[in-house]
Amino acid sequence: MNYKKIFKKIAEDLSTIKDKGEVANYIPELSTIDPAKFGIHLTTVHQEDYCLGDSEEKFSIQSIAKVLSLSFAYQLEGENLWNRVGVEPSGTAFNALFQLETDQGIPRNPLINSGALVISDILITHLDNPKEDFLKFVRDLSGNQSIEFCQRIATSEKATGHRNAALVNLMKSYGNIKNNIDEVLDFYFNLCSIEMTCNELSKTFLFLAEYGTSPFKKERILCKSKSKRINAIMQLCGFYDEAGEFSFKVGLPGKSGVGGGIVAIYPNKYSIAVWSPKLNKKGNSNKGIQFLELFTTETESSIF
Amino acid sequence: MNYKKIFKKIAEDLSTIKDKGEVANYIPELSTIDPAKFGIHLTTVHQEDYCLGDSEEKFSIQSIAKVLSLSFAYQLEGENLWNRVGVEPSGTAFNALFQLETDQGIPRNPLINSGALVISDILITHLDNPKEDFLKFVRDLSGNQSIEFCQRIATSEKATGHRNAALVNLMKSYGNIKNNIDEVLDFYFNLCSIEMTCNELSKTFLFLAEYGTSPFKKERILCKSKSKRINAIMQLCGFYDEAGEFSFKVGLPGKSGVGGGIVAIYPNKYSIAVWSPKLNKKGNSNKGIQFLELFTTETESSIF
Amino acid sequence: MNYKKIFKKIAEDLSTIKDKGEVANYIPELSTIDPAKFGIHLTTVHQEDYCLGDSEEKFSIQSIAKVLSLSFAYQLEGENLWNRVGVEPSGTAFNALFQLETDQGIPRNPLINSGALVISDILITHLDNPKEDFLKFVRDLSGNQSIEFCQRIATSEKATGHRNAALVNLMKSYGNIKNNIDEVLDFYFNLCSIEMTCNELSKTFLFLAEYGTSPFKKERILCKSKSKRINAIMQLCGFYDEAGEFSFKVGLPGKSGVGGGIVAIYPNKYSIAVWSPKLNKKGNSNKGIQFLELFTTETESSIF
Amino acid sequence: MNYKKIFKKIAEDLSTIKDKGEVANYIPELSTIDPAKFGIHLTTVHQEDYCLGDSEEKFSIQSIAKVLSLSFAYQLEGENLWNRVGVEPSGTAFNALFQLETDQGIPRNPLINSGALVISDILITHLDNPKEDFLKFVRDLSGNQSIEFCQRIATSEKATGHRNAALVNLMKSYGNIKNNIDEVLDFYFNLCSIEMTCNELSKTFLFLAEYGTSPFKKERILCKSKSKRINAIMQLCGFYDEAGEFSFKVGLPGKSGVGGGIVAIYPNKYSIAVWSPKLNKKGNSNKGIQFLELFTTETESSIF
Repeated sequence: MNYKKIFKKIAEDLSTIKDKGEVANYIPELSTIDPAKFGIHLTTVHQEDYCLGDSEEKFSIQSIAKVLSLSFAYQLEGENLWNRVGVEPSGTAFNALFQLETDQGIPRNPLINSGALVISDILITHLDNPKEDFLKFVRDLSGNQSIEFCQRIATSEKATGHRNAALVNLMKSYGNIKNNIDEVLDFYFNLCSIEMTCNELSKTFLFLAEYGTSPFKKERILCKSKSKRINAIMQLCGFYDEAGEFSFKVGLPGKSGVGGGIVAIYPNKYSIAVWSPKLNKKGNSNKGIQFLELFTTETESSIF
Repeated sequence: MNYKKIFKKIAEDLSTIKDKGEVANYIPELSTIDPAKFGIHLTTVHQEDYCLGDSEEKFSIQSIAKVLSLSFAYQLEGENLWNRVGVEPSGTAFNALFQLETDQGIPRNPLINSGALVISDILITHLDNPKEDFLKFVRDLSGNQSIEFCQRIATSEKATGHRNAALVNLMKSYGNIKNNIDEVLDFYFNLCSIEMTCNELSKTFLFLAEYGTSPFKKERILCKSKSKRINAIMQLCGFYDEAGEFSFKVGLPGKSGVGGGIVAIYPNKYSIAVWSPKLNKKGNSNKGIQFLELFTTETESSIF
Repeated sequence: MNYKKIFKKIAEDLSTIKDKGEVANYIPELSTIDPAKFGIHLTTVHQEDYCLGDSEEKFSIQSIAKVLSLSFAYQLEGENLWNRVGVEPSGTAFNALFQLETDQGIPRNPLINSGALVISDILITHLDNPKEDFLKFVRDLSGNQSIEFCQRIATSEKATGHRNAALVNLMKSYGNIKNNIDEVLDFYFNLCSIEMTCNELSKTFLFLAEYGTSPFKKERILCKSKSKRINAIMQLCGFYDEAGEFSFKVGLPGKSGVGGGIVAIYPNKYSIAVWSPKLNKKGNSNKGIQFLELFTTETESSIF
Repeated sequence: MNYKKIFKKIAEDLSTIKDKGEVANYIPELSTIDPAKFGIHLTTVHQEDYCLGDSEEKFSIQSIAKVLSLSFAYQLEGENLWNRVGVEPSGTAFNALFQLETDQGIPRNPLINSGALVISDILITHLDNPKEDFLKFVRDLSGNQSIEFCQRIATSEKATGHRNAALVNLMKSYGNIKNNIDEVLDFYFNLCSIEMTCNELSKTFLFLAEYGTSPFKKERILCKSKSKRINAIMQLCGFYDEAGEFSFKVGLPGKSGVGGGIVAIYPNKYSIAVWSPKLNKKGNSNKGIQFLELFTTETESSIF
């Protein structure tokens, strides 16, 4: 299919609509991004590439990285993982302390902040040099050794991350954090500071369209069943309190980040990354979701 | 594929495991069901049939009927429907009054009780003879004019349905119920009292595997896009607080009822109905979910 | 003490301040009251009377009546009462369905709507002619046989009382309502429709300043200990989510109603009723609270 | 009145009842207390003393100290204090993170943990040497220069205080903590570690029975109005989720601590301290409350 042509047509249609979103502004490093940035990159399982716009520009992938830490922890810890974090949609804002109290320190799923903090804790337990080892995992997955954390962003997040500190302390009080709190927070903020281009993001996630193998890495990352389960979790929990809306409109598993990125997976077909920094009220890229809705409608891509 | 053989093998494997579920007991009509009942029926989009066990015995489909009323209301009301009910997972028990207050009387989705009550209200507004017209819709859909409400069950539910009366009154206080409260409750309890066999249930839902057309009805029921959206809603909201678990393990959109029935859809492939009355703690058929997990693993059926 | 002079001085001071409250408007009968009405009546335990302004004009006492039904039910049911309703402040808005679910249908206290509905249910169980018998109790208490329900208000409340219907249905589902739901609601809406003047209201509540005896009724209404406990409940629960504020500023047990009335008790000294229809955001008479704060400061009346 | 005789009689009556409470066990320092300890000390405003049992033995006053830090902060900050903490009962367990989120980081009242943390933050801002200056305030108040923090307890609390760390981080995220988080926690854990005998505790709180002046300190601590307001806050918020029960049964303002201590104030009459380490399910001294209920009934002490 000539995806490039479809990209262009939709991008033109969207250019006539005012983007009502707002760029994330809780740290300076995110607020200063040019709000007009717009990039798309699609990689098929046959490794054909299609792109548009600012697809070669780095941006902060933020929460999208939670899928990568989850994949690594699932590989290392296996099904025991699910003793410490659930697989259910959270049904409320992404930081809900209330649910954590009700559920005795067990986060609803690994893609909300509390869940990603538990996953970070698990990785720290498994890895000798957690940050370095994780970065190696991501680089190998994407076949790209240039991928880096952004220290400036990690530091800035840490300075304002009192809500995440509250989450991790609360879970520690329930015994669901095993390592030092500062180390967990440091790993977590680094994790979320990873920068990628749309091109890199789409390639990094291709293994989830290929049932657990990456064309860029020799060994299998996850078995077929585990890979599908990651997709299932993305489908149900990937967009905070907008997961239903995204499933309803786009019909693919995916994950968003407050940097304005979205990645979506069409199993056995392709992985697609979109970037547009202005966020809607639920904290997901406004134009990114609009684009994907039109794109999956046009191409009749939907797992349903 | 020889589904029958796979049914047999899994049923044998499951027969050695103690079913720890409990039959629903809040009304006598459900509590007296033989807990050992077990039926399966699969219908492919090519209308091949595969069955096992008590697949020709009628049971109360209960909440599974909410997908049918939703489909009918979506057909009649179109996208305006979503002004009165959301598409997000509820994330808590199926009757949450709390969320209804937070969201000003708008239910999270049409498959929780509050949402199904709003859908009932919408159908009452549209239909001249709501119960009769709805029954006709279901009969036409399934190509089976013998499908009936069970008056005894509807009456019994009504006598104990104070929690549903609380929900509908609360929504009325927010202006999200337009018709008479007693009429809405009467329609709702009848809706949930529909009885079907596994065979009938699987055929009735076949239109969702066929993108909105039913082989048993001449006209299209829903357009392709709307039909996929119903599947998306089932995927995210079809199993109360176990939707994530079902997606994770089974990987198909589906819906359960407290009568012990489950229906699941493999788009463009088949519709499958399972019935086993003992429920797990989340209120879903215990053995039914176990069966579907093994079946989709064995047949590598999964939308992810 | 020359209370009359103090009344005048404070009323003059308050007349220069803009009253930012809003008259209750959820039923027409309350919304059409002249917002400028302002009445005060104080009765000492020596039966001296002091009044100012519109103190001889009838108004709807609304929730203030909940203290009277509680007193009657406490007299009839004794300490068993507390098996069905708590004595703790609610800490949230006056209709919280959430807490009722958490506490399995047991309202936090008898002065929130749910609690008053349970008290109504208890009275219906005890009384042959609930409404008539309750009215007789109030008339005897106040020594005034002219006190009446306002049928127009009761009917209007009923027509819009879906939230209260939700509460009573929810409690019925937990088994904490024994009588017919419609009868409970009818009694409750009548109860809240009682009309009194400030003079009548102050005299009716004098028994709580006299440790359970009323000068207008020969027999003791409540023993000393029970009477003090009613005061304690008013102190902690009498002003919805503003009970702390009222205790903090006024320092007397009291109860408010959305009709703009407030009654407060200075044990062994006096009972005082104030009426001013404009309510603050918490649903309590704005000027009424301001007056009482200044009055208790000026007269150094405070139980603390 | 011969309080001593009444103490003896009630103590005898209680000695025949099994104390079903449990000693606090979240830190070793509290769990090793002899559960049979029982002390009482009452000081009248005329400085007459009455005591019984282990009234000269030191124990950890824990949360009772929150009234002292509140009094100091109220003296230093005045009414501005109430911009940062409310005066309403919390209505739920003493650590509710949920309410803190709903109320944007403003604790319901200064006697729950979150509120006491904000008060600690305020004192740190005002004081040059917060811990030393606070200790001096308490020593002067009680006329007793031997009162000390217990370093062992403060350290132990800190090591397990992840929940309090969660609270303070959450409030910091809303901007309601101005100083360094570790300093606030350190001050708070020291505050709660103060040790006193019943004798000392009763004398320390005597200023609240004397409308703000202490016989042991030359200057006035709080003006009459502020002193009464502290009593009002204790009445409504002094016993976590059992404040209503305590008001209902005991009828005096008071405050409890998990060390098993309770102090109660009869304005213009006396201050009384009771100590018995076994706690009821709400976290308040079981025998202590029983004693005070019988004592206030026998002596007809009640502000209501």
